[in-house]
Amino acid sequence: MNTAAFADFRSYPLISALTAVHPLADRLEVHWADGRISPYHHVWLRDNCPCPQCVYTVTREQVLEIVDVPDDLTAAAARIDDSGCLCIDWQDGHASRFDPGWLRAHAYDAQSRAERQAGKPKSRLWDSSLELPVFEFAALKADPNILLHWLLALRDTGLTQVRGVPTEPGSLAEVAKLIAFIRQTNFGVLFNVQSKADADSNAYTAFNLPLHSDLPTRELQPGLQFLHCLVNDTEGGESIFVDGFAIAAALRQEDPAAFSALCEIPVEFRNKDRHSDYRCLAPIIALDSLGQVSEIRMANFLRGPFDAPTEQMPVLYGAYRRFIAMSREARFRLIRRLDPGQLWCFDNRRILHARNAFDPATGARHFQGCYIDRDELLSRILVLQRQ
Amino acid sequence: MNTAAFADFRSYPLISALTAVHPLADRLEVHWADGRISPYHHVWLRDNCPCPQCVYTVTREQVLEIVDVPDDLTAAAARIDDSGCLCIDWQDGHASRFDPGWLRAHAYDAQSRAERQAGKPKSRLWDSSLELPVFEFAALKADPNILLHWLLALRDTGLTQVRGVPTEPGSLAEVAKLIAFIRQTNFGVLFNVQSKADADSNAYTAFNLPLHSDLPTRELQPGLQFLHCLVNDTEGGESIFVDGFAIAAALRQEDPAAFSALCEIPVEFRNKDRHSDYRCLAPIIALDSLGQVSEIRMANFLRGPFDAPTEQMPVLYGAYRRFIAMSREARFRLIRRLDPGQLWCFDNRRILHARNAFDPATGARHFQGCYIDRDELLSRILVLQRQ
Repeated sequence: MNTAAFADFRSYPLISALTAVHPLADRLEVHWADGRISPYHHVWLRDNCPCPQCVYTVTREQVLEIVDVPDDLTAAAARIDDSGCLCIDWQDGHASRFDPGWLRAHAYDAQSRAERQAGKPKSRLWDSSLELPVFEFAALKADPNILLHWLLALRDTGLTQVRGVPTEPGSLAEVAKLIAFIRQTNFGVLFNVQSKADADSNAYTAFNLPLHSDLPTRELQPGLQFLHCLVNDTEGGESIFVDGFAIAAALRQEDPAAFSALCEIPVEFRNKDRHSDYRCLAPIIALDSLGQVSEIRMANFLRGPFDAPTEQMPVLYGAYRRFIAMSREARFRLIRRLDPGQLWCFDNRRILHARNAFDPATGARHFQGCYIDRDELLSRILVLQRQ
Repeated sequence: MNTAAFADFRSYPLISALTAVHPLADRLEVHWADGRISPYHHVWLRDNCPCPQCVYTVTREQVLEIVDVPDDLTAAAARIDDSGCLCIDWQDGHASRFDPGWLRAHAYDAQSRAERQAGKPKSRLWDSSLELPVFEFAALKADPNILLHWLLALRDTGLTQVRGVPTEPGSLAEVAKLIAFIRQTNFGVLFNVQSKADADSNAYTAFNLPLHSDLPTRELQPGLQFLHCLVNDTEGGESIFVDGFAIAAALRQEDPAAFSALCEIPVEFRNKDRHSDYRCLAPIIALDSLGQVSEIRMANFLRGPFDAPTEQMPVLYGAYRRFIAMSREARFRLIRRLDPGQLWCFDNRRILHARNAFDPATGARHFQGCYIDRDELLSRILVLQRQ
């Protein structure tokens, strides 16, 4: 049993016990029972001291600033105590005590870092054969474990359907708040997707909408999009989805030059009406620091004129046409009609969605939508996983 | 006079008249009265056709998708008409007509692109000698031109004060809505900055808060932060501001290796309590595509343990300590006490703010705060500039 504090609300299981600690000039070398050896610099250990002087116990936020500790502070003594914690007496008289579970979880030897990297969640790419993850609203409300499964499906597969949602306007907010508060935009908190004479977006017409992400015109595209069907009596209007990451992966394979152009040449997207004028300049495909596809930004109807050096213009058009053409291929597309009481919830930064044209003369069609950001999804997952 | 449509709500003044148009294999070469020559590829022109078949006139959003036009489409004829517009008859029978003001504004010859780049707004760096931009709430409400000046000061200087704001709780929302809706967070829509026993952030204590940006724990740090003083009878609690871009520029000059480390090594920031667990991994200094400093992400009390390869750890600590030490230098700091009815509004992604400790025993202190994102600020500026 150990009782060392840490600046966190999570628990850190004991992976392996501390067996020895060796002081070096600028660091301690810690040995674990499973044979791993982890270095911890003196400055890192002092910085992460979890004692109540260094960390405010109520917020678990640091009050120490490392710049207030001498540059050359070293440990006067280091030992493993009876409860298996690492104890350090600093030259200036301060003392620190580290939980071995916490210490291992934050070890920065190469092997520990590689393990953490490998343990990160990965996107599961999909095509037209996707077995759609479907959840019942009642079950999501009743069971935190089913809720967690829904959120993990959103994070890793990116497309889900929820059924059994009331069809009263505003009911969507009840579903959204299972995750967090809603991200407001200039289109409102909940927006009504209906054909309107005074539309301020092609989404509010009966036109077909080509595959797109919502609000590519914002620096941060909304992380999750919800579309809730209240009424759907019209002919047409089917929902179409593709996994933008899967298309990007195929493009990378089949036409690397086109893939590079979409990663490198920024494109401007614009949402404008009489009261707003949003613009965002960014590449269509974003890569993370490891070179993996991390985001798709795409909406033909919101795109500004391409602005690129003359010699790049044909390259950009070739790549753009190729990407759109691929997104129209049957191998990638999932097509479904949404019925009243059902809703789509999907990763708006990965999954492109489209709508077939519908005929407003054949009946009523009323969807409501809203957004929640990825930060809120990931926070909710981490809190549910604490249990 | 010309009457050509365009897919926008802005106007495009005539900079120079069209004098000639020469067809080449894949593009038109357009000559302007001021001697400039601009190439426009056929595909670019066809893509940007503003006719009511290609652009829905209500939303001014494109309905044409360029992938539906043959790859090798070329102009059958091109001429300048009596009103000075560029008219094109396409081989497939479609016809396009382009306003010369619009065409020049979107020209992508090297000179036109360089002009546009040079015309982009630039940050005005400041130090402790800043003459603080101060605005009266009544004037902001009454005069759209003064409102625009406030917003431009926020965009370019990053720190402003507004005076004459009512001290009733909630009044801040009236100021915020001069720009746009408020960005909600897990701390609420308006948050109360008061010392609380059950604080979920060190901000809600009487501690000093070191220089920081708010919510570095989110993928998108809030663009604007408001802090409105309702009551301030305590001793201490002065506000301190530094221009993070100015400090980064000085660091780049004085210690290029430290600057690079803060640009390259990602750091994790965390907001956690019993109900949320936000984390964001990103470098402290972000650069834009031109290598210019575009964002500072910093809050020592929200920082997680550094996670970097062993050999980088001393480099990262050295750079981090240096940045913090610089932010404490008098040359950069502006220190002011905020009185009731005054508010700070600043660029939270550039300006770091701090608070001296205060003594709750000496009186009451109640601030309210909120956030608006940069997208909304820039949209509001563009709409006001349309007039």
